[in-house]
Amino acid sequence: MPKAEGTEYRASKLTPPLGPRFNGAPPTPPGQTGFKIDGNIVSWANWKFHLGFDARVGPVISLASIYDAEKRTYRQVLYRSFISELFVPYQDPTEEWYHVTFFDCGEFGFGISAVPLEPLNDCPANAVFVDGYYAGQDGNPVKVSDVMCIFERHSGDVMWRHTEAELRDQEIREVRPEVSLVVRMVATVGNYDYILDWEFKPSGSIKFGVGLTGVLEVKAVPYKHTDQIKEEVYGTLVADNTIGVHHDHFLTYHLDLDIDGDANSLVKTNLVTKRVTDKSIPRKSYWTVEHETAKTEADARIKLGLKPAELVVVNPNKRTKPGNKVGYRLIPGSAAGPLLAADDYPQIRAAFTNHNVWVTPYNKSEKWAGGRYVDQSRGDDTLAVWSNRNRGIENKDIVLWYTMGFHHVPCQEDFPMMPTLSGGFELRPTNFFEYSPVLKTKPPQHLSWPNCTA
Amino acid sequence: MPKAEGTEYRASKLTPPLGPRFNGAPPTPPGQTGFKIDGNIVSWANWKFHLGFDARVGPVISLASIYDAEKRTYRQVLYRSFISELFVPYQDPTEEWYHVTFFDCGEFGFGISAVPLEPLNDCPANAVFVDGYYAGQDGNPVKVSDVMCIFERHSGDVMWRHTEAELRDQEIREVRPEVSLVVRMVATVGNYDYILDWEFKPSGSIKFGVGLTGVLEVKAVPYKHTDQIKEEVYGTLVADNTIGVHHDHFLTYHLDLDIDGDANSLVKTNLVTKRVTDKSIPRKSYWTVEHETAKTEADARIKLGLKPAELVVVNPNKRTKPGNKVGYRLIPGSAAGPLLAADDYPQIRAAFTNHNVWVTPYNKSEKWAGGRYVDQSRGDDTLAVWSNRNRGIENKDIVLWYTMGFHHVPCQEDFPMMPTLSGGFELRPTNFFEYSPVLKTKPPQHLSWPNCTA
Repeated sequence: MPKAEGTEYRASKLTPPLGPRFNGAPPTPPGQTGFKIDGNIVSWANWKFHLGFDARVGPVISLASIYDAEKRTYRQVLYRSFISELFVPYQDPTEEWYHVTFFDCGEFGFGISAVPLEPLNDCPANAVFVDGYYAGQDGNPVKVSDVMCIFERHSGDVMWRHTEAELRDQEIREVRPEVSLVVRMVATVGNYDYILDWEFKPSGSIKFGVGLTGVLEVKAVPYKHTDQIKEEVYGTLVADNTIGVHHDHFLTYHLDLDIDGDANSLVKTNLVTKRVTDKSIPRKSYWTVEHETAKTEADARIKLGLKPAELVVVNPNKRTKPGNKVGYRLIPGSAAGPLLAADDYPQIRAAFTNHNVWVTPYNKSEKWAGGRYVDQSRGDDTLAVWSNRNRGIENKDIVLWYTMGFHHVPCQEDFPMMPTLSGGFELRPTNFFEYSPVLKTKPPQHLSWPNCTA
Repeated sequence: MPKAEGTEYRASKLTPPLGPRFNGAPPTPPGQTGFKIDGNIVSWANWKFHLGFDARVGPVISLASIYDAEKRTYRQVLYRSFISELFVPYQDPTEEWYHVTFFDCGEFGFGISAVPLEPLNDCPANAVFVDGYYAGQDGNPVKVSDVMCIFERHSGDVMWRHTEAELRDQEIREVRPEVSLVVRMVATVGNYDYILDWEFKPSGSIKFGVGLTGVLEVKAVPYKHTDQIKEEVYGTLVADNTIGVHHDHFLTYHLDLDIDGDANSLVKTNLVTKRVTDKSIPRKSYWTVEHETAKTEADARIKLGLKPAELVVVNPNKRTKPGNKVGYRLIPGSAAGPLLAADDYPQIRAAFTNHNVWVTPYNKSEKWAGGRYVDQSRGDDTLAVWSNRNRGIENKDIVLWYTMGFHHVPCQEDFPMMPTLSGGFELRPTNFFEYSPVLKTKPPQHLSWPNCTA
């Protein structure tokens, strides 16, 4: 059997040698949150959105819109978004483990698995905490205290900058530090902790971050050294008698974009190499773009990385002054795809991971990529099945589904406690504005320390 | 001709409507840097490294080692690392533009293009600034003030956490907020600004961040609306008479890892799908790993994304207690590859971007991926040519070369000033430690505001 030795992670029980120790983040003066909450509506900088909490998926961001200073109005970006499913298949096919292929949203509930956040450590000192409620099994409301936090992030990054040194008599230097607003929830589904961030940027981007941390799932073996292992053990020997089993994490997001209204299309902007035919030009090639609008669901089943393309959700009925269709594009994160055989039972149930991207027409019954009743699913009510109807998706109210995947070959550093592995993706305005909404943002007023004695 | 209208970005000249305005990052008490600088040696938490400055590549991180509390000693990770070349080919093959295929390190010099950093905006309030020197054309030293900054980052992220709720009588909750150390430089090469971050994490990771910002490179056209355009214009109409030309950014890093000494190997940990043959198991497939050690340079020319694999630099002579080879793995960022034809002149000169990853045996003359004299290069002194010698790279002092690529289809938000587009990659300890070096890190001592009056 594996030993308990080396698995302690509680601060109160630690024995030397200890790791490095830090001071906490610099504190913010009380009350300086930078944003407003009115019921479920959060307003900050040029953003406004509705924040909900759901037993199945945790945070739900709805009605996100951004202020357009030129047009003097808020403009719609996101009707509703949430993590629809999280598929975690373990890769040990033996009797005791073959069924360990979790669907964390549909089987456990990301909201039900959400945990109270610890002030100062889970979220910085300027965070505001929000409680969550869901209906318990007996119908009574269940409250999860401090289940989400909202905070203004001052990451030390730069929003934009330029030094202009090519003018004769002057140097121009303009720098704007990045400030963003983060909504965070943590779901602890058994051993793993998922840190979910929705980050709003004044430039118009929304970043969806995920942090994978928590306790590695392990199994017992008779071995204490890799040299003793002569059979397939389906994982890494991370300590005496302890195998960290191979597995994946596939996070499938439901992104119901409404770009300036609900009639939207997916445009694939393919990057295509062309030969130069003019012999007088001493260059032989270049790339250019070919726009392809997805007409039906089949056109929008996309495995990322196979060919270079930008994926843009546009409103084909609204154009900028120079005539570009207003849109937001997906900047993907880790694009891992499934490695299970397509005819394997867990993969049939998780067929929604067969493509990184899908687009469906909005249908109020199609919220959960793995189907309504995931525990008993035989795979006949998944996104992959709905998409087979091959409905029209051009100039319609559409939903973008994006799956971010991680293959996890455990290593010793992950046991017992895995340092956060971060991933994420971005929705970025693309000819949505006439110019960047932070072009005319002045430098910040830097807070100075008040009159203090040390 | 394009108009000047709409291209102003100086705070002092802005006219309404203005963008959102922010307070600066919460200030830190003076003197609270958290790290030590002794000559060129920076020490912080469990990290120690040498920081240099080079006219050609900017920051050079050498001799990075991390303290192993179990072994009571510093252990080598990185002998030397820097950005070796940055290739920016524009995709307009007409007479005036075809030659615009910049090699920013070899032709301009990333250090020569580095700009003084602006306190509070380019780097947060707790940053320490460092000057840089290089030899000018007349042989005299040239000083660039405040050319790099070093700061402890409190991003609001979580280093690791777990809530254990499955024990009957108790709940365990342990959370450690992330703190990291960032070394930053900004190179402004003409119109573009590159923000280069080297970020050291107490967990043993090194993150290499890059931020792309600055002024979009444009050309004049007679058009004011996309409907007027009936020819190929090689870019996006971003304003009246103004095309943002298609281009790429390929950043090639020279990463001379020395994992516990200089005899290292590259191991490709391939993830391979297997069929289940035992008919009694109701599961049909799983994936497992097959380790493949690169023997010669040809084995280590890798295009990312074609097959799932982890790339680990190991010291095959050093093993952990359970017998794993000590190593660090590459977690890649954006894996874009070249779209120019392989026989096109700029691509011959930039043949080092033909693969995302290369490994070469250490050779003191092989530092610049594009060759020593890039301006006059005909492509006969590049990484791609050196690699053709197909030298042995197993259990040797090796250099890992990684190219991170971005295809850029400009959009209106990028003109005139592009909000930072961030990318990056990570070197992460993989069976380097017996367990995570932050497992035994206690929660931070949170600073409280001193006695202050508002």
